[in-house]
Amino acid sequence: MAKIPHRFYLTEEQMPTQWYNLRADMKQQPDPLLNPSTLKPVEEQDLYPIFCKKLAHQEVDCTTRYFDIPEEVLDMYKIFRPSPLCRAYNLEKALGTPAKIYYKFEGNNTSGSHKLNSAIAQAYYAKEQGLTSLTTETGAGQWGTALSEACAYFGLPLDIFMVKVSYEQKPFRKAVMQVFDGNVIPSPSTTTQVGKKILQDNPNTSGSLGCAISEAVEKAVNTEGCRYVLGSVLNQVLLHQSIIGLESKKAMEILGEYPDVVIGCAGGGSNLGGLIGAFMQDKILGKSDTRFVAVEPASCPSLTRGRYAYDFCDTGKITPLAKMYTLGSGFIPSANHAGGLRYHGMSPILSKLYHDGYMEAVSYEQTKVFEAAVQFAKCETILPAPESAHAIKGAIDEALKCKESGEAKTILFGLTGTGYFDMKAYSEYLAGNMTDYVPTDEDLEKGFATLPDIK
Amino acid sequence: MAKIPHRFYLTEEQMPTQWYNLRADMKQQPDPLLNPSTLKPVEEQDLYPIFCKKLAHQEVDCTTRYFDIPEEVLDMYKIFRPSPLCRAYNLEKALGTPAKIYYKFEGNNTSGSHKLNSAIAQAYYAKEQGLTSLTTETGAGQWGTALSEACAYFGLPLDIFMVKVSYEQKPFRKAVMQVFDGNVIPSPSTTTQVGKKILQDNPNTSGSLGCAISEAVEKAVNTEGCRYVLGSVLNQVLLHQSIIGLESKKAMEILGEYPDVVIGCAGGGSNLGGLIGAFMQDKILGKSDTRFVAVEPASCPSLTRGRYAYDFCDTGKITPLAKMYTLGSGFIPSANHAGGLRYHGMSPILSKLYHDGYMEAVSYEQTKVFEAAVQFAKCETILPAPESAHAIKGAIDEALKCKESGEAKTILFGLTGTGYFDMKAYSEYLAGNMTDYVPTDEDLEKGFATLPDIK
Repeated sequence: MAKIPHRFYLTEEQMPTQWYNLRADMKQQPDPLLNPSTLKPVEEQDLYPIFCKKLAHQEVDCTTRYFDIPEEVLDMYKIFRPSPLCRAYNLEKALGTPAKIYYKFEGNNTSGSHKLNSAIAQAYYAKEQGLTSLTTETGAGQWGTALSEACAYFGLPLDIFMVKVSYEQKPFRKAVMQVFDGNVIPSPSTTTQVGKKILQDNPNTSGSLGCAISEAVEKAVNTEGCRYVLGSVLNQVLLHQSIIGLESKKAMEILGEYPDVVIGCAGGGSNLGGLIGAFMQDKILGKSDTRFVAVEPASCPSLTRGRYAYDFCDTGKITPLAKMYTLGSGFIPSANHAGGLRYHGMSPILSKLYHDGYMEAVSYEQTKVFEAAVQFAKCETILPAPESAHAIKGAIDEALKCKESGEAKTILFGLTGTGYFDMKAYSEYLAGNMTDYVPTDEDLEKGFATLPDIK
Repeated sequence: MAKIPHRFYLTEEQMPTQWYNLRADMKQQPDPLLNPSTLKPVEEQDLYPIFCKKLAHQEVDCTTRYFDIPEEVLDMYKIFRPSPLCRAYNLEKALGTPAKIYYKFEGNNTSGSHKLNSAIAQAYYAKEQGLTSLTTETGAGQWGTALSEACAYFGLPLDIFMVKVSYEQKPFRKAVMQVFDGNVIPSPSTTTQVGKKILQDNPNTSGSLGCAISEAVEKAVNTEGCRYVLGSVLNQVLLHQSIIGLESKKAMEILGEYPDVVIGCAGGGSNLGGLIGAFMQDKILGKSDTRFVAVEPASCPSLTRGRYAYDFCDTGKITPLAKMYTLGSGFIPSANHAGGLRYHGMSPILSKLYHDGYMEAVSYEQTKVFEAAVQFAKCETILPAPESAHAIKGAIDEALKCKESGEAKTILFGLTGTGYFDMKAYSEYLAGNMTDYVPTDEDLEKGFATLPDIK
């Protein structure tokens, strides 16, 4: 057989044309979303004021196994997909491991991450329904950038509520969104009631993701032809992100490979859920005994130290309730450079899989994560995002275990994005100024105390 | 025939294994480099104190048509190459042109540009010769980043003299180099005699590329086992960059295409020379009548308004003299965001081709260039570097001419890099604060007055 290439790309003809809905194969379904006022399961129609109809349907559909990817979405996918499946020969050599390490690299697009996969789908369905604008929130800016690109492509105006501290500290992120016509508003703002109230109570606030979500939702429900979109956690997002795993599986099939371990970083779950989907299907159907490992920051350990409970998806407590591993919507994660992993909860689908023993989870402190990032960068000449570096650290540890045991396992991890906009973090690490923080049990109790009382 | 894909990647087996030396096919050779003290042609051995031996040989070899790419260089190429040949379907549609627009995208690597192609070769040959360190200079930081990556890969210490104003204004660029162990020194520095002298004369200077080159060369010639490396202008650099054109040609062959026009941005010439090489061979050998267009900034118009004369390659006047299109080493280009195109001269190979009528040249003002960049970004979801955007503007204008004439020409342009580190420029453009500057004939005369008096 020919040598496995360093980078492997499917052809356009080989690209998946359907998304995979993992719920259709799960033996036990995730618990449904609950309406926060009635505590009854949310119906598809309940979501129409927030999400466009097709997305609302995808959110609640637990039985349709495959959804056709619309032609228009496929057309935009083809501009930056397929993403490469990479063999980390140099990292393997540096580690001296018998393991074969693969990674699916989703950072080779201007948004710099996998977020674009769902952004395109969400913008397309909104356009198709005849909507005339969208709103969203963004913290560090990855999601806002991806959605701006998608909206520019489909000609859909977009308001992005950007957490004020990021708006001020990351002017270049803001500028990228503006290139793609995104209207970036520092949050809290005076354009919404909730923003005005927060500013009145606390004029000097630097904002929060919870506040930005609340503003974006308020703007959407009060604006004719407008809807709100979200880049993670939701079932629909995991559906769109399933393209990552589908491509990975197909590429590995062609190369005659199958992973023994699949590893992804875990924040809200969009990347991890997308990466593992197609492989998890095999495990659920008894066709493989692949291990799945979620890697999270020790500073925000929703899977490894959280509770499996109903909770709000936002700190503003206006969203439906989801049954998930959570630290409580009031949990305040300490400073950590992996902004994309600072979420109190976890995708309900992934939470259920973890709860039912289909998936493992580990957590790492950030200095160890950056150590892995720098080692990886030197071997593979890709500068990873801090979020992605969590998966790298997980993969390195698995590969080192193989070195000890002598097993030549096949490892696949998700490299979600690039670190171009995270150089401040790298500088801190290189200067030896990076600190780690692990919440005490007491810290966690404070977060758990904010959980709603639902049996 | 199958539809041409949006992105086309050669397989690893299809990747070129040799570089192409365009000089071997040129009917008339570029004039030789001259020793600045004797004014005699430079011999290979004269270059040994500055360049490692194999690179010195490549610099002067005008007859060897192909050079084998060393296995170790190929191995590193395979981490980020082949780069995709892209069909700009969306841009074509937006322009309403019958032209087919292709671009070779070299920005999909952490260095963010094509510079890595030569950096790897230069670091490898240095390592192979047993050298123990390298020096270089960097302005905006693209070359410094690429060389840091290459040196980290081969385990070679590297000192990078970075123009002080960039060092201070671009801390993130500096941080990327540091991730790859690059030792970044603000220039002028107190680590060299020339630096000390400049600081003594002008303690508050913000530095210049000319000064940084002088420091890097001084450090190299005074350090045991150390050599200096340069990322553009040189013949050896164009040789390494020929991989761009070779891959493009092979990919187009497979797709059943051949360009009617090849367009590249032109600073020192590394990208343009690399892109056009394999196609220019056909033209020189009478096998095609493809047009070649160099695009330069109106603020630094070395081809369109410069003189074909012997000049120094650096403002410090310590390098050999090259016969090239030049504005004079003392020409001070006005502020322009395409830092990589602010060079007073042009590769001697490209200068000769232009002089002999094999190539055309056009220049654009930067606001028009950014207009093209933003249009391209929205269509193709790639945020181009300002340098690359010059080629985009050239391609758009060619495509619009086709629209007028109704000709379905095949256009190929080089997209050299991404604009992640150029967001300040984009912000200025979006805010309407970007200004254009075209040197007057008087400005040019001041530059020409610094040309050495050589017949």
